[in-house]
Amino acid sequence: MNTSSEHPPHHSGRFITFEGGEGAGKSTQVKALVAKLRALGLEVVQTREPGGSPGAEALRDLLVRGDATRWSPVSELLMMYAARADHLEKVIRPALQRGAWVVCDRFADSSRAYQGAGGGVAPAFIEQVDEVVVGPTQPDLVVVMDMPVEAGLKRADARGDAENRFESKGLSFHERLRAGFLARAGQMPDRYGVIDADRGIEPIAADIWALVQTSFPELRGA
Amino acid sequence: MNTSSEHPPHHSGRFITFEGGEGAGKSTQVKALVAKLRALGLEVVQTREPGGSPGAEALRDLLVRGDATRWSPVSELLMMYAARADHLEKVIRPALQRGAWVVCDRFADSSRAYQGAGGGVAPAFIEQVDEVVVGPTQPDLVVVMDMPVEAGLKRADARGDAENRFESKGLSFHERLRAGFLARAGQMPDRYGVIDADRGIEPIAADIWALVQTSFPELRGA
Repeated sequence: MNTSSEHPPHHSGRFITFEGGEGAGKSTQVKALVAKLRALGLEVVQTREPGGSPGAEALRDLLVRGDATRWSPVSELLMMYAARADHLEKVIRPALQRGAWVVCDRFADSSRAYQGAGGGVAPAFIEQVDEVVVGPTQPDLVVVMDMPVEAGLKRADARGDAENRFESKGLSFHERLRAGFLARAGQMPDRYGVIDADRGIEPIAADIWALVQTSFPELRGA
Repeated sequence: MNTSSEHPPHHSGRFITFEGGEGAGKSTQVKALVAKLRALGLEVVQTREPGGSPGAEALRDLLVRGDATRWSPVSELLMMYAARADHLEKVIRPALQRGAWVVCDRFADSSRAYQGAGGGVAPAFIEQVDEVVVGPTQPDLVVVMDMPVEAGLKRADARGDAENRFESKGLSFHERLRAGFLARAGQMPDRYGVIDADRGIEPIAADIWALVQTSFPELRGA
């Protein structure tokens, strides 16, 4: 895990992302963590991807609706990173530069999983685009919410919203996603924490808080 | 110029793109060329970028409207290539594979000019994206419509349409564009032809037809 002294010099804030498949309870846990950090008097920007800025939300509308085959994985990847560039420029970097905490529901690892592991876009190409768009603004901590694919899809389906384009891509696609997130977390254990998300909200929130305290020593004892 | 034997083996059709700054008269000349080819009994697909397929046209709406600074050049580049991937997959490649002629108003060289030469995105990055998205589907002939920047902007302004986001980027931006198109044409003279577009419609059309006949020997004598 990071210690304060290891934070990259490009910003004074803290950048936490939540990743995982459909129905893993990311939004609920993002809200809970943001509330806890705010209760400590910290400035926290809660945001999400795709989206998070007006331009990026317009791209989100094109990405998350309609038929599963509406866009090829390469088109999806480029739209996701176009939205991400806008989100970084307009929201994330300004917040980090003024020292705020940024908590984001999905970020670049969702592109690696959905368009890479799931969609078959070459990982080397994704990293070329990531280096130009994200560059040094990598998350300090990535919380991977992990659960069995079928249980997650059942939960997501129960939400019944219109933003279901990715949910409709089939079971083996979602199995590749899950493996993609876990492989990435395994490769970079110092910045990633895997949380068993197939449990009740409270024990999950407690584990996430422990992970966050480990990653950011300034929060220990809070 | 190409001869028939040099056409890449990936398609049996012919792919012609028109490039140039604002107000250079591209659309008028695209229409004239398409009419001439159709009069010879050829199947011709007339299309344009950004756009040309339903998904790409939705991205066009986000790209060409609004304030000049609405998107950063990197976001623009990624959206342009996302749209291009869709256009290639749904329209251009199927047409070329069945042996049709495709005449496209703007293509990848507009990205090199607007986001590269004009916007400052690194040329090496544009080529990485181009290789993944366009790959072997490079145009057989690129017609560069060249004219002084101020005259072109005056013409474009007189159209008075709402798609004026790029027109509003300022004179030095458009000077960089023009130089970008000419530099590219100079580097690849076998696939590019530069047309003096600061003249009447008829002499321009005659020069373009002569260029097309030179590039595609099967049209000589037509």
